[in-house]
Amino acid sequence: MTLTPEQLEDIQKSRANPQLTLRAVAPGMERHLYKVQPVLNHGFVRVVDYMGDDGSIVQAARVSYGAGTKHVSNDEGLIRYLMRHWHSTPFEMCEIKLHVKLPVFVARQWIRHRTANVNEYSARYSILDREFYIPEPEQLAAQSVVNNQGRGETLQGEEAERVLEMLKADAGRSYDHYEQMLSQDGQAGLARELARMNLPANIYTQWYWKVDLHNLFHFLRLRADQHAQYEIRVYADAIAEMVKDWVPAAYGAFEDYRMGGVQLSGKGVEVVRRRLAGEVVTQETSGMSKGEWREFEGVFG
Amino acid sequence: MTLTPEQLEDIQKSRANPQLTLRAVAPGMERHLYKVQPVLNHGFVRVVDYMGDDGSIVQAARVSYGAGTKHVSNDEGLIRYLMRHWHSTPFEMCEIKLHVKLPVFVARQWIRHRTANVNEYSARYSILDREFYIPEPEQLAAQSVVNNQGRGETLQGEEAERVLEMLKADAGRSYDHYEQMLSQDGQAGLARELARMNLPANIYTQWYWKVDLHNLFHFLRLRADQHAQYEIRVYADAIAEMVKDWVPAAYGAFEDYRMGGVQLSGKGVEVVRRRLAGEVVTQETSGMSKGEWREFEGVFG
Amino acid sequence: MTLTPEQLEDIQKSRANPQLTLRAVAPGMERHLYKVQPVLNHGFVRVVDYMGDDGSIVQAARVSYGAGTKHVSNDEGLIRYLMRHWHSTPFEMCEIKLHVKLPVFVARQWIRHRTANVNEYSARYSILDREFYIPEPEQLAAQSVVNNQGRGETLQGEEAERVLEMLKADAGRSYDHYEQMLSQDGQAGLARELARMNLPANIYTQWYWKVDLHNLFHFLRLRADQHAQYEIRVYADAIAEMVKDWVPAAYGAFEDYRMGGVQLSGKGVEVVRRRLAGEVVTQETSGMSKGEWREFEGVFG
Amino acid sequence: MTLTPEQLEDIQKSRANPQLTLRAVAPGMERHLYKVQPVLNHGFVRVVDYMGDDGSIVQAARVSYGAGTKHVSNDEGLIRYLMRHWHSTPFEMCEIKLHVKLPVFVARQWIRHRTANVNEYSARYSILDREFYIPEPEQLAAQSVVNNQGRGETLQGEEAERVLEMLKADAGRSYDHYEQMLSQDGQAGLARELARMNLPANIYTQWYWKVDLHNLFHFLRLRADQHAQYEIRVYADAIAEMVKDWVPAAYGAFEDYRMGGVQLSGKGVEVVRRRLAGEVVTQETSGMSKGEWREFEGVFG
Repeated sequence: MTLTPEQLEDIQKSRANPQLTLRAVAPGMERHLYKVQPVLNHGFVRVVDYMGDDGSIVQAARVSYGAGTKHVSNDEGLIRYLMRHWHSTPFEMCEIKLHVKLPVFVARQWIRHRTANVNEYSARYSILDREFYIPEPEQLAAQSVVNNQGRGETLQGEEAERVLEMLKADAGRSYDHYEQMLSQDGQAGLARELARMNLPANIYTQWYWKVDLHNLFHFLRLRADQHAQYEIRVYADAIAEMVKDWVPAAYGAFEDYRMGGVQLSGKGVEVVRRRLAGEVVTQETSGMSKGEWREFEGVFG
Repeated sequence: MTLTPEQLEDIQKSRANPQLTLRAVAPGMERHLYKVQPVLNHGFVRVVDYMGDDGSIVQAARVSYGAGTKHVSNDEGLIRYLMRHWHSTPFEMCEIKLHVKLPVFVARQWIRHRTANVNEYSARYSILDREFYIPEPEQLAAQSVVNNQGRGETLQGEEAERVLEMLKADAGRSYDHYEQMLSQDGQAGLARELARMNLPANIYTQWYWKVDLHNLFHFLRLRADQHAQYEIRVYADAIAEMVKDWVPAAYGAFEDYRMGGVQLSGKGVEVVRRRLAGEVVTQETSGMSKGEWREFEGVFG
Repeated sequence: MTLTPEQLEDIQKSRANPQLTLRAVAPGMERHLYKVQPVLNHGFVRVVDYMGDDGSIVQAARVSYGAGTKHVSNDEGLIRYLMRHWHSTPFEMCEIKLHVKLPVFVARQWIRHRTANVNEYSARYSILDREFYIPEPEQLAAQSVVNNQGRGETLQGEEAERVLEMLKADAGRSYDHYEQMLSQDGQAGLARELARMNLPANIYTQWYWKVDLHNLFHFLRLRADQHAQYEIRVYADAIAEMVKDWVPAAYGAFEDYRMGGVQLSGKGVEVVRRRLAGEVVTQETSGMSKGEWREFEGVFG
Repeated sequence: MTLTPEQLEDIQKSRANPQLTLRAVAPGMERHLYKVQPVLNHGFVRVVDYMGDDGSIVQAARVSYGAGTKHVSNDEGLIRYLMRHWHSTPFEMCEIKLHVKLPVFVARQWIRHRTANVNEYSARYSILDREFYIPEPEQLAAQSVVNNQGRGETLQGEEAERVLEMLKADAGRSYDHYEQMLSQDGQAGLARELARMNLPANIYTQWYWKVDLHNLFHFLRLRADQHAQYEIRVYADAIAEMVKDWVPAAYGAFEDYRMGGVQLSGKGVEVVRRRLAGEVVTQETSGMSKGEWREFEGVFG
């Protein structure tokens, strides 16, 4: 991930000038503001703005005239209660705005989270940079043989080399041609909105993405999950670290009840009860399908 | 509108302690923060938090590394361009959180704006205060005779007195009974979630309401409009004053292109063109219905 | 619940005239179409339209050119997989439109589900009917002593009588005054948008409500839950019966994974594991708060 | 656009079996159901399902017990009134579901319309087909010299040939390498979720897209507009033709008030008034910026 001197200067200027505000301030988040957190080979996440803190969740839940409660421990207990009982609206009272640089195929997954605000760099209006995601060798995984939608072992030797070679060469050639099509040197120059169609899905794009804390947690639950594709998971992980510093109590509750938690089906509850009562239960006697049983045993087997 | 000493103290405490932040600060909005802006006889609006300023709109539109552009005048030109061309996503990058106290029948209109976050005071959990909206005499309007959904002349004399008397007496009696049903003095006491059903629609409720600037402008366009019911319009007007101080360039563009603007139909465009060419056009020759013509003539007649 | 002869005729006319369509038809739902399912003393739910069936969920998940798969059992397996793994978008491909008559205080809870389309009967434009929700004696519950937001024992004897008396008398008097304020007999007549403020929250309103199946399941999970207020739960229960006939496979998966399921926290998973390994775990050694432990023991105790 | 015999058979089977329904049926839409409407070189749009008709808009606006009004002309007048006054919720009561095949760069614009339901063909799970959008020669446009985000003249001669040659060669080579990376012939085979990153933005994808009529009109207003990129506009145009047959009254109102209409700013209204009063107004005396004036004169100049 490389920034131009001009971009670095813009960031430093933004960080150089603290101002007074009466709003809720989250010191843990102020430390992150504007800084670039590198992700993948050319990507990044950086916080551009935020609204609220743990106290704001409590304040809204109570519809109070001041901030939070008097005691931080009370705030935390209430926040855990709200999370446990799916009272989601108080978490919507915190908001975060991120500037993200990411490969297009990651952006295409990300954008499926609809309850968010987005401004993306326009390739109709501007020219994209020559920056492509090329996986690290240890991320060059084979197709999973058990999961149609997952990765298996890491590719080895010549096969890995061939793949990297193809990805690099095709990216380079596509971008060369992109530039040649756009060029107005001795020719008219193709419209930018057309020329971009030649660029592969590992080219980087950027956007401003703004979302409330409830919907961000939903994003993190799906995208920081082990079933998420690695290339979006690293973004979710980077964001999770920031959220932990921003709203530590809410993040703690999220970790316990969502990330570390498990959704048991009615059949799953029944099997746990029977086992606790000493019964031996197998897939055949569980009422579950094979796939469901495999997942259940992954937790309690 | 009356606040308890404890509520006033909470508000003063919130305003007493400015802190340093690296985020964009809107000085015009800091002046409003937490203060109570009275609306109707017991209601209010107060800003509890905000995110962004005019520069944030430009920053997002450009997906830039720093804030806004170098020159305020450039920012304003771009903001007007965005507003004129319905590029709404950059305006979504600003967010505002309000604490509002309002009659239930106003809340029922307000909540129809779905793209917002809300935490309302719970009458299942808590007991509502004895505060009702009673119109000022000049707001006691008769049913409009031309518009099924509007007001006509102000009621006069005995009729006005009778109406005010009924509203006050019914509100008082309903609240007395609400308290008697809830009372646990010598009886079990009805559940709060049931007792509340006896309260009329002019009782006050409160909520935290958070919305982005694009959707707030949509709210203002519909609710600060002359066709909106007076009792919600006064809230919209109070909010509009705050927005003007918060994002003056965006608000200026909104006033010109939305509030002060007019949507002409294809037929309307044609009539204007014909008139500019010197032709006399009447409803009969306009192709418009009578209702549409009346509205058109209200603008250009 | 009473319909006028004219309303009944409208409903019968709608049911009298089946037409040919090429769309997916759900026979179980056709039987419900337009019929009134009574809820509470004057309310109802009736299906006005629907889109899709179980096969439509499979069709969308596969982005296929035809309908569902060849075998119903395959469809069901896939639907259960989608539900288990929170793949919610295929469920959004089914849509339902309901006409609901419900007390205003129920409508106020209901409307908080934002991802839906609503057209409500307008009390600015029209005059509401004299119909109020008055609880059955067995629903006249005392405030819960353990839960701030719940019901306890049923009220008895004179207390119950007093409550019913107050609810009926206040409703009647408020409506009498509503009519007197509106009357144009010898007076101007108050505007409808003002007169309605005198009406209590147990008056009935009506709306058309349209929602996709994923969001409907979310509604049912929260509102058919035992913690939901009885007066909205009976609506959720009535809708659930219709959904069961409409999309039996999806409803079965919903019942098993959502309604009958349990969300275990990370701490809860740990306690189950320790117990299955033979350890005795108490609240003190569980790491859970008292409230959380109580809920956990309610499932596995 | 080519369908396999199996796909054609699926479509014919869907059309072969009309069933009886009590729901509102729109004969104009039944004719379109399931049929493939070709767009661009390999893309298409086809209606997979719909809910409601013109009468459903009226039915919801009136919260009535039956369908529409007695007279089609009354329905149309009400629909025009609703459209003129931005009463959008009745239009949300109609819903449409489309199956669309489209280039990825078009899909990326399209998905920005958030209030819709989408299921896209998954390139993590499945292998994409070798089908790319290659523009027709007359669509090979140069970058506009007046508009950063638009097209100018059509490319000519050798430049056009070079561009087409590059687009075709790069697409072919990228796809060859995609297949080689995926191949499990003598090697492990790269994971599908990784291999897809090599594919350019003109490859075709497919999705099921479901949206209500109000949001569809919003989509059409922006994407059937002359400022929209040609490659998405042709999809919008194809959909508009279907909507016209589905809800002719609503589409007529949309055409008059939205597509054929003009949004005048407050300054624009003033200039029209002054001109109608005989005054000569120029940009300098209009108060408008140059850009705004140019657009204004484009309508009334």
